[in-house]
Parts: sequence; structure tokens; C-alpha cells
Amino acid sequence: MAKYSIGVDFGTLSARALLVDVATGEEIATVSDAYKHAVIDETMVYSGKKLPPDYALQHPQDYLDSFGTVVKSVIAEAKIDPADIIGLGIDFTACTVLPVDKNGRPLCFEEKHKENPHAYVKLWKHHAAQKYATQINETAQKRGEAWLSRYGGKISSEWLFAKIFQVCEEAPEIYSEAAYFIEATDWIIWQLTGVQTRNSCTAGYKAMWHKREGYPSREFFAALDPKLKNVVEDKLNCPVSPIGSKAGGVTKEAAERYGLCEGAAVAVGNVDAHVTVPAVGISEEGDMLMIMGTSTCHMLLGSREKIVPGMCGVVEDGILPGFYGYEAGQSCVGDHFAWFAENFVGGDEENKIAYISKKAGEIKPGESGLIALDWWNGNRSVLVDIDLTGMFLGMTLLTKPEEMYKALVEATAYGTKMIFETFRQNNIEVKRVFAAGGIAEKDPRTMQVYADVINLPIKIAGSAQAPALGSAIFGAVAAGGQKGGYDTIGEASRAMGSLSDRVYTPNPENAKIYEKLYAEYKILHDYFGRGQNDVMKRLKEIKSNKQ
Amino acid sequence: MAKYSIGVDFGTLSARALLVDVATGEEIATVSDAYKHAVIDETMVYSGKKLPPDYALQHPQDYLDSFGTVVKSVIAEAKIDPADIIGLGIDFTACTVLPVDKNGRPLCFEEKHKENPHAYVKLWKHHAAQKYATQINETAQKRGEAWLSRYGGKISSEWLFAKIFQVCEEAPEIYSEAAYFIEATDWIIWQLTGVQTRNSCTAGYKAMWHKREGYPSREFFAALDPKLKNVVEDKLNCPVSPIGSKAGGVTKEAAERYGLCEGAAVAVGNVDAHVTVPAVGISEEGDMLMIMGTSTCHMLLGSREKIVPGMCGVVEDGILPGFYGYEAGQSCVGDHFAWFAENFVGGDEENKIAYISKKAGEIKPGESGLIALDWWNGNRSVLVDIDLTGMFLGMTLLTKPEEMYKALVEATAYGTKMIFETFRQNNIEVKRVFAAGGIAEKDPRTMQVYADVINLPIKIAGSAQAPALGSAIFGAVAAGGQKGGYDTIGEASRAMGSLSDRVYTPNPENAKIYEKLYAEYKILHDYFGRGQNDVMKRLKEIKSNKQ
Repeated sequence: MAKYSIGVDFGTLSARALLVDVATGEEIATVSDAYKHAVIDETMVYSGKKLPPDYALQHPQDYLDSFGTVVKSVIAEAKIDPADIIGLGIDFTACTVLPVDKNGRPLCFEEKHKENPHAYVKLWKHHAAQKYATQINETAQKRGEAWLSRYGGKISSEWLFAKIFQVCEEAPEIYSEAAYFIEATDWIIWQLTGVQTRNSCTAGYKAMWHKREGYPSREFFAALDPKLKNVVEDKLNCPVSPIGSKAGGVTKEAAERYGLCEGAAVAVGNVDAHVTVPAVGISEEGDMLMIMGTSTCHMLLGSREKIVPGMCGVVEDGILPGFYGYEAGQSCVGDHFAWFAENFVGGDEENKIAYISKKAGEIKPGESGLIALDWWNGNRSVLVDIDLTGMFLGMTLLTKPEEMYKALVEATAYGTKMIFETFRQNNIEVKRVFAAGGIAEKDPRTMQVYADVINLPIKIAGSAQAPALGSAIFGAVAAGGQKGGYDTIGEASRAMGSLSDRVYTPNPENAKIYEKLYAEYKILHDYFGRGQNDVMKRLKEIKSNKQ
Repeated sequence: MAKYSIGVDFGTLSARALLVDVATGEEIATVSDAYKHAVIDETMVYSGKKLPPDYALQHPQDYLDSFGTVVKSVIAEAKIDPADIIGLGIDFTACTVLPVDKNGRPLCFEEKHKENPHAYVKLWKHHAAQKYATQINETAQKRGEAWLSRYGGKISSEWLFAKIFQVCEEAPEIYSEAAYFIEATDWIIWQLTGVQTRNSCTAGYKAMWHKREGYPSREFFAALDPKLKNVVEDKLNCPVSPIGSKAGGVTKEAAERYGLCEGAAVAVGNVDAHVTVPAVGISEEGDMLMIMGTSTCHMLLGSREKIVPGMCGVVEDGILPGFYGYEAGQSCVGDHFAWFAENFVGGDEENKIAYISKKAGEIKPGESGLIALDWWNGNRSVLVDIDLTGMFLGMTLLTKPEEMYKALVEATAYGTKMIFETFRQNNIEVKRVFAAGGIAEKDPRTMQVYADVINLPIKIAGSAQAPALGSAIFGAVAAGGQKGGYDTIGEASRAMGSLSDRVYTPNPENAKIYEKLYAEYKILHDYFGRGQNDVMKRLKEIKSNKQ
């Protein structure tokens, strides 16, 4: 009798469920559902009141509604007995956080708070907490906080404490009323199991938590702001569970609501990028997975904790138990291509990227004479600087749009190579490279450029829904071997994870030319990115004075 | 009884005649006519044989035919008595040169040479002589030739000796058979008057001739190539006449052919940009005229000879008698705007520039956060480097095409300011600024940006056909006061030249922001343009290895 696991991937605009055969990894059915309120970034939901700039909120009820829709639909579509669903896992894009009361009820569900933006979910891309992130960084630097170097020397405005700090300062009544601030992924698990858990992945990568040292100290938070002195004890008071562990069983109430069986195992929450690692079946030191979409997330398995400047974080057991999981990122990849196609390519909306990408595919490396810096949305790794901006160089009167498009594609590949080299310079080897996500799946021309630039073969994930498959794998591990699942992530990954037979192999001639072009990229990268010429920042300053 | 003068402006693709009332400057009639063969840059005229890259030839018969058409038509249209036409002047874009026999007959008119490209006119933008220009520059530097510094330290492949050198090396039979190499403007005058003259403007700016020192020495030419040792005596053997003087009277034959009166005064030839100076009625030290079109030519009146790095040349009496005429240039101005509109703006062809320019006009200085380097076609002044290329910097995902267009407009204005500052740093004052040409005439938004960037008012030429008006002024001076014309260019210019009432006045608030942006431009200009990072050249090298 086949057993099944469901993985639910909560994306930025929709949730997707994937129902998988636990023994074989076969994908039986998949369903997705868009959130009713999408991203709340212009006006408040009920009153239509205008939001300040850089806000990005979500409504937690949307998560529950979409979860119910996709889980019930995927079971119906698979035509299986819910009793055979032994496990369930979920993942979110992090840090996506909300304030709740002691029972886990979101504060925005209260009538009195429903017009207060700070009572809602702050989505990962809520960027209005930058000044609080800056204060955190300055205070940590001043105090010489050791944890800062684990995050490449700078924490991001997207992360937990910057967002909590903003609530504390700008909505003290919400801060005071919140029993907890909790990651949306952990909050959903709480709704399913009745038990609050906090997963080691978001805690480690987004909340500066360390397996042995815990969160930053009370002294640090007091130095930041006396009101935050007890933030950990007062607002995060819950042990951190390692990923790969079981959070609990589905409650009777949740079972009825979502068409599941009471007691089915639920894995602790996880992050979309990280959960994808077992979905491609990789598990060796030096394995690098790139999740390539609008932005790219790089996850690398290491055997030691090293400090690598400009990475997003290193967390013990953060990706797979038994490894130091290194994370790096490029904040803008596919977004560049969409920007170019949308603004500079005429004709039919849908085919713009396909059209320009095809023409760009005919251009040989070096043939355009162009180079770009891939910083349209700042630089996450290795410069950790959201104030950097883009550059195109080398244009003549004969330059064609497709050449500029190709220069952008190449620039993002150089950005990836820069990350790889930074790891290597710090004695963290990148041995094998794997890719998942929309670009890996659908854009072979770009993938070939990447293989040529990094001069390593790139293997492509077997599943088009790799994050959801990863969550299903964690669901199977939560169920455990005795119930028909697995006892370790390694076992589950080997059985259920998969690679496609697509491998992008470097063309040696192209690699040689890209070696030269990358040398030019590096000079420009350091000139504009490491303070030799801060023109990008000064232009932003002039711009902000004009607005 | 009114007297008239005709000015004929030979442009790159057509000739235009303007018939003017000598007393008032009133423009009575104007007619233009396109050259039959336009620019010969792909295949030879008769055989259709393919030309090498960078060739740009013309057929001298086209000049004569179009001259006849426009002169006869303009007289007919004006309905005046040809006997009242007292003078005629012409101007060309220089250096535009052809080989002729001792009677002034073009060698390409000979049956045996009609398939030889080197027998034809080499148009100003014939760029296939670059390697000869490079040799000239290297030899001049090695020998410490004093004249080199008068041309900003580098001569251009567009100029006379580079073109002659190419003929000498690549078509020795043409070189040997040519009795003269002559500027097209001087050749037309010869056809009209039966007298060979050479004007001080093209000789000074394009043939390294100096009022007191003459051409470069025999020793220099011998060092360049022994075959060229006697090039001046053998191929340019004709005195140089100051501009503003009379070349001769219309011959009987020419009078009959073109419907003029025998003996009407003909001015020595001139250059389109330079001839425009009296057409706007300027005549003071520190007066700067910009002819703004696809490229921009800057002409500045000075009272002393100073060496200014990176200018195109300083020639005593080269623009107006009694002044040192300084010339500088930007090799790509309107061409940038056309490139952008053609490649990146959708919709109706004709209105692309108008469409994007209107949207760009709504953007305030500094508001886009962008900066560009205006080197899509290299940099003429002050870097004198055709291998430089363009740059855009500061893009984000919110950047709009019109912002990039505006950054290009601004970059060309910064390029102008750089020229002004270089003059000033070398103690040549730029006091008053005037503009003519297509952009000055038709693009008020761009003109306002220029006024704000250079922080000086810009006055606009009164005539839409300013070069042709300038030539008519020189025609009136050639006729002289006794015949109803003028004895000096100053007098003629005051009576016939004119400014429109359009003045672009700097907005102090904009000027303040542009001051800051220009400081950024300058840093990038020097970084990429003065050898700190030769990435543009290395990319060109990689590109040329790929082709």
C-alpha cells in the first residue's frame, strides 16, 4: 500500500501543494492557489489607507485559505485515501513574520488592530525597516559582536530583528500586545499541530540564532534600545527545533478543516530555498545548489564553520543536519531580464523575454564588446549593499538591444562566479553545482552562459516544483521509518529527490573568453562596490533629495 | 536697387542654396537638392564592387549637378535679375578631398580610374585611413613636432594627410597621377572662377597649415614615408588664401551653365561650421558658437594662440580674420538620441525621438539617479580617442527608458561643459554662447538642459539655414563695398547675420544640481578616459578577436 507526503510551498503570491509517493518520489498531483490579497504594498486592506513607501505586508488569513484550497484539491485530484498521507511539510520565503497573541491568533484579526499595518505579516521583501537594520549593524560593529561575521558582516533589513525593532518603535501598542513574533512558516505549523515550534533554518539565517550560542545577548539588545532588552524572552520565547524533526501531529480540528487525518506527522517549518536541497538529492560537502528565479539563492554544504565575507549566513544544520549550511544570494537575477524586456522590447507582452533571449542567444561571448554590473536591486553577496545600482559599459552606435540583454545575463553569471570565488578564497570549496527554479527549468541559453562563466557543469533539478518536493521529503522524515517514511533526510532525499538528465557543460572556448571578461567585471565590481568610487550612492542621495 | 548674395552649403547628403538680400540679410529664397549617389560606402558606383569597411566616398559630378540645380532654382524662385547677384560663397563639411589633374579635372572622371575608389572624393567621414593617422601621430610625437600641440596632441584619420597617405600607399598610380589633392570646397571654387585657391580654414584645421610656419616640414614627411617627402610641393602647390577674401569672378562658362552673371564675386571656400559664425552675428573674443546636430562642432574666438589639450585645432584667422579660431568637437550628440530612439522606443518611426524626448522633459535634474558617458562614437574633445565607448550607470528596477534617454542628453551636455572647462583651465575664456544646427533649432528641452549644465545663457541663431547664410555673407564680402557688398566680415555680419529672440537661460536650482552631477561625470570621464581603467579598449580588443 503506497504512502504519501504532501509538501506545501508558500510563495510570494500563491501557495502550491505537491502530493508525492514516499517510496518512489513520484509526483502524483500538484495544485496552486493565489492569495486573495496578494502583496499589500500600496493601501490597507479594509480602509484603503495609503501605506508608506517600501511596505510589503500580507494577510495571514490568506495563507490559511490557500492552504485549505490546495491541500483539499491535491488530495481530490490524486484520488487517494487521506489515511495514506503520512506526513506533511511546508516552506515559506523568509523572513516573513507576524505578531500573534499567546494562543497564536494574529493581532490583525482583532477588530481594533485591523487598520494597523504593523499588526499584519511583514513579508520578506518589506524594506521599510532599513534604518533599524542600519542601527543593528552599527551597534553590533561598535560592540564587536562575534555573530555579525557569520552573516558576512552585515544583517539585512529583511530579517527578523529589524522588523521587530520597527514595530517596537513605530507601533509600541502592537509590540506590547504581541505575545510572540513568529515566522509565518512556524505559525502555519502551529495552526496544524496546536504546538508552537521554531525551526533552526529561519532562526539561524534570519534571527542570528546559533546552535550553541543562541540569539544575540540581552546586553546587545539593551544597547540597541532599552525597550528591546528582553525581546528574546518576551517575544520569541520558544525553543528552536532542528529542521528534519517532527513538530507534531495534525490536530483533530485541522484534520477536519483540511481533509487530513488526525495525527499525521507535520515537519517543523522551513525555507523555500533550503528545503530544495534534498529535493535534488545532493548531500556532499562542496555541493552547491542555486535556486534561480527573480533572484538567486545559493546554498552550499560545508563541513566546517568559516567566516566568509559577504555571505548571507552560515548555520550549523541550517540546510541539512550534519553540515554547516552556507547561504549566499543575488538579489536581482531574472528581475533584470524582465526589466529589460518590459522596458526595451516592443511587441507582444508575453513573448518579450523569449524574443530577446533568442536573439541574444546568437551572440558569441565577447562579441558585443559590452559588460554590465548586475546591481539593479543592489548587491546581496558578496558586497551586501542595497544602495548599489546597475551599469552598462561598451555601447557604440551599432549596439543592439539583444547585446545589452546578453550583457545583463552575463553580469548575473559573473556575480555568481564572484560568490564562488569568495567561498574558495576562504577555503570553502564549491565542487559540484546544481540548479533549480524558473531559470534553471526554462532558460537553457542563460544556463549555458552560467556553465561557461563558472566553468563547471551545472546539473538541473528533476522536479519542476522542487521546493514543494523538498517539503514533502521533510514530511516523510517527520513521519519516520516506522510509519512508512524515513528516519533521516539523507535516506529520504536519496529515495524521493531527483535530478533531471539535463546537464549544462562548459564550452572550453567560451570559458576562456569569459575568464577575460570576468577579470574586467571584477575590476569594475571592486571599483564601484568597495568604496573606490561611491558614485552610485551619491547619485541615490541626489535623487532622494529631489523627491 | 537691392543686391543679392547666394550662399551654397554642401552637406553630407545634399546641397542647399540660400539667396539673401545683402543690405538687410533678408532670406529671399532657399532650395536644396540631394546628391545623386549620396554617400558611396558599400559598393562602387558603376561596377557594384564591394568597398572595404569604413570607406565613405562621393562623386564630384554630384556636387556640380546639385550646385547647378539649387542655384538656378533659387534664382528662379526669388524672381530677381541675376545681374543683381553680386557675390557667391560656398561651404563644405571638411576634410572632404579629391585628387585632380593639373586642370582641376577629377581623376575619377577618367575612364581608366572609374573603378578605383581612391580616384573619388574621400568624404569627411571616410574612416579607413586610421592606421595612417596613427603613423602620422607617432612620427610627429617621436620628432617632437611643434604643430601637433596646436591640434590637441593628435590628428584625426578624417584629415588631409591621413587621406593622402592612404592613397599614396594603397593606390600609388592615383597618387602619382594626381597633380593636386584638393578640398572639395576649393575645387568647386576653381570650377566657378577658373582659378585654384586654397582657403585658410581647411588648410589650418585639416592640413596642419600655419599662417607663419606653413605646412609640416619636408623632413617630417620624409620621416613618415620617403615617398611623401615632397607631398606639399608636388600635390598641394598653391598659395593659401585667407577666408573672407575673393577667389575670383564667375567665368563666362560657369555664368552660362549656372544662370549667373560673368564676373560676379566668388569668395574663397569655407567650412560649414566655421562659416556659421558670422551668420549669427558674433564677433567678440570669448564668443563660442556650437553647431549642434548628429555631432557638435564648437568654435571659439580667442585673441591669443594658446595650446589647449584635446581641442581639434587653433588657427589664426581660421574662423574670422583678426582672431585665433579655436575648434573643438563632440563626435556623437544627436546620433546618441537617434540610437536610443531607434533601438529602445517602440511605435511609429517618425515620432520616436519626439515621444521619448517629451517624456524625458518631465524628469527633473538628478531625479533619475542616472549618469552616462557620451562616448558611443568615441570622444573627440578633450580626450581625442575613437576607441572609447558608452556607459550608463545608476539603473534600478524602476528605471524607465525616458530616464536613460535623459541621461544621454545630459551626458552630451557634460561633454560640452568639459570642453568649456578645458578652455578655461588653459586661460581661454568662454564668455558668450550661441548655438545653431538641428538641435538648437528644434529641440528646446535639450537646449534647456545645456543651459542648466553649462550655467550660461545660450542664444539661438536667427536663420534656420545658418551655414548657407554664412556663405552668402562671405559672398557679399568678396563683392566688396564698392559693388554694394561689404569690405569686412564684421560689417557684413552685423548687417546680414542674425540671432533669433530665443535665449535659453539657466535655471539656478537646476544648475546647482548639475554642478554636482558634473563632478561625478568628471570622475568617471577621467577614470575611463585617461587610462586609469582601459576596460573599453580591452573589450574592443576582445570583440575584434571574435570577428
